[in-house]
Amino acid sequence: MTDWLTSLQTNTPQEGFELALKLSRKGVEYTQQSDEIQNKLRAEYAKNADSLTLASQVAATHFQTIAAANNYWK
Amino acid sequence: MTDWLTSLQTNTPQEGFELALKLSRKGVEYTQQSDEIQNKLRAEYAKNADSLTLASQVAATHFQTIAAANNYWK
Amino acid sequence: MTDWLTSLQTNTPQEGFELALKLSRKGVEYTQQSDEIQNKLRAEYAKNADSLTLASQVAATHFQTIAAANNYWK
Amino acid sequence: MTDWLTSLQTNTPQEGFELALKLSRKGVEYTQQSDEIQNKLRAEYAKNADSLTLASQVAATHFQTIAAANNYWK
Amino acid sequence: MTDWLTSLQTNTPQEGFELALKLSRKGVEYTQQSDEIQNKLRAEYAKNADSLTLASQVAATHFQTIAAANNYWK
Amino acid sequence: MTDWLTSLQTNTPQEGFELALKLSRKGVEYTQQSDEIQNKLRAEYAKNADSLTLASQVAATHFQTIAAANNYWK
Repeated sequence: MTDWLTSLQTNTPQEGFELALKLSRKGVEYTQQSDEIQNKLRAEYAKNADSLTLASQVAATHFQTIAAANNYWK
Repeated sequence: MTDWLTSLQTNTPQEGFELALKLSRKGVEYTQQSDEIQNKLRAEYAKNADSLTLASQVAATHFQTIAAANNYWK
Repeated sequence: MTDWLTSLQTNTPQEGFELALKLSRKGVEYTQQSDEIQNKLRAEYAKNADSLTLASQVAATHFQTIAAANNYWK
Repeated sequence: MTDWLTSLQTNTPQEGFELALKLSRKGVEYTQQSDEIQNKLRAEYAKNADSLTLASQVAATHFQTIAAANNYWK
Repeated sequence: MTDWLTSLQTNTPQEGFELALKLSRKGVEYTQQSDEIQNKLRAEYAKNADSLTLASQVAATHFQTIAAANNYWK
Repeated sequence: MTDWLTSLQTNTPQEGFELALKLSRKGVEYTQQSDEIQNKLRAEYAKNADSLTLASQVAATHFQTIAAANNYWK
């Protein structure tokens, strides 16, 4: 796979949050590499509240890591 | 998306808790961007105990991050 | 909402544990604000082992935060 | 409720692990205070692999807190 | 119960990972003490992907604790 | 089992992310050691959004550990 993650540093908390969402998606894409199946799954889980919450939990976990990496943007 | 998260600093733990809830909602909104579907899903999961607990878990994870960012408001 | 969380400091670990339970309940109450529905949901999930375990997980996450805030009551 | 948690300090990691299990049980007991229902639920979930795993996750979370409180018994 | 956890220190990350798996199993064994039922449950959940993932999550949580205890084997 | 984890140090965040995915797989492989069953389970859960999200959560937890081990590649 090409380079897609060279640093955990971001300029703002919001960019850090968006990076966390990217890491969440990547965690899935490494396992399910078919774009077609990914799109199909995304269409389904985006309409299910619990699925969205579980995905949001993964992003929250990555955000902890990224926030620590940026010393909480203090 | 416009700026919505410029700092993790809050004046009080309660404001930090409310920011954690906001981050939880944002984690969902980035994935499901339709207001209509969001409202529909919210109405459903707000009546399901386990769905509320799972959402509360995401907020608890974000609260850890925010509390650390504020040095626990000591 | 009125002030309900002004500090994460507690005198003892047990008070910290009880504060963690309070934060867990608050995470739900912000989303489902009807007392009636809350009471109904609580009556149901209190009889389901997995629901109780999931709620206990949220409290454990908040207890981590509160324990750190109190330097583990050392 | 009487005092049941006055310190997170333990002599050994094993005692810390057992304290983590106690905190997990307490998280449930605060919500479901009937001994009769607790015993009934315990009998059921002790025969379900996923229920046991979820309960084990709560204990693992508390063990993190207790291990930190004891400086990892170094 | 006899002594089974006297230290979180291990020589290598791999030994730490294997200790994390042991802690995960112990979390279950304290609650379900029948060897017979344990074996039966293990045979079942080892064939279910989500059950294996949940168990893997518990091990990941314990590995965080053990890695910190060993200063990440730096 | 032969040596497969001698260090948590990686050159880049991306390598750390990929190591996190490896630890996630290993957590499953220690419990389910049959390659045949592993492949069968992987084929199934790779088509289920929630299964992929749960697996992604395990990787996110391991990534926290690895990121800390590498001082967040600062």
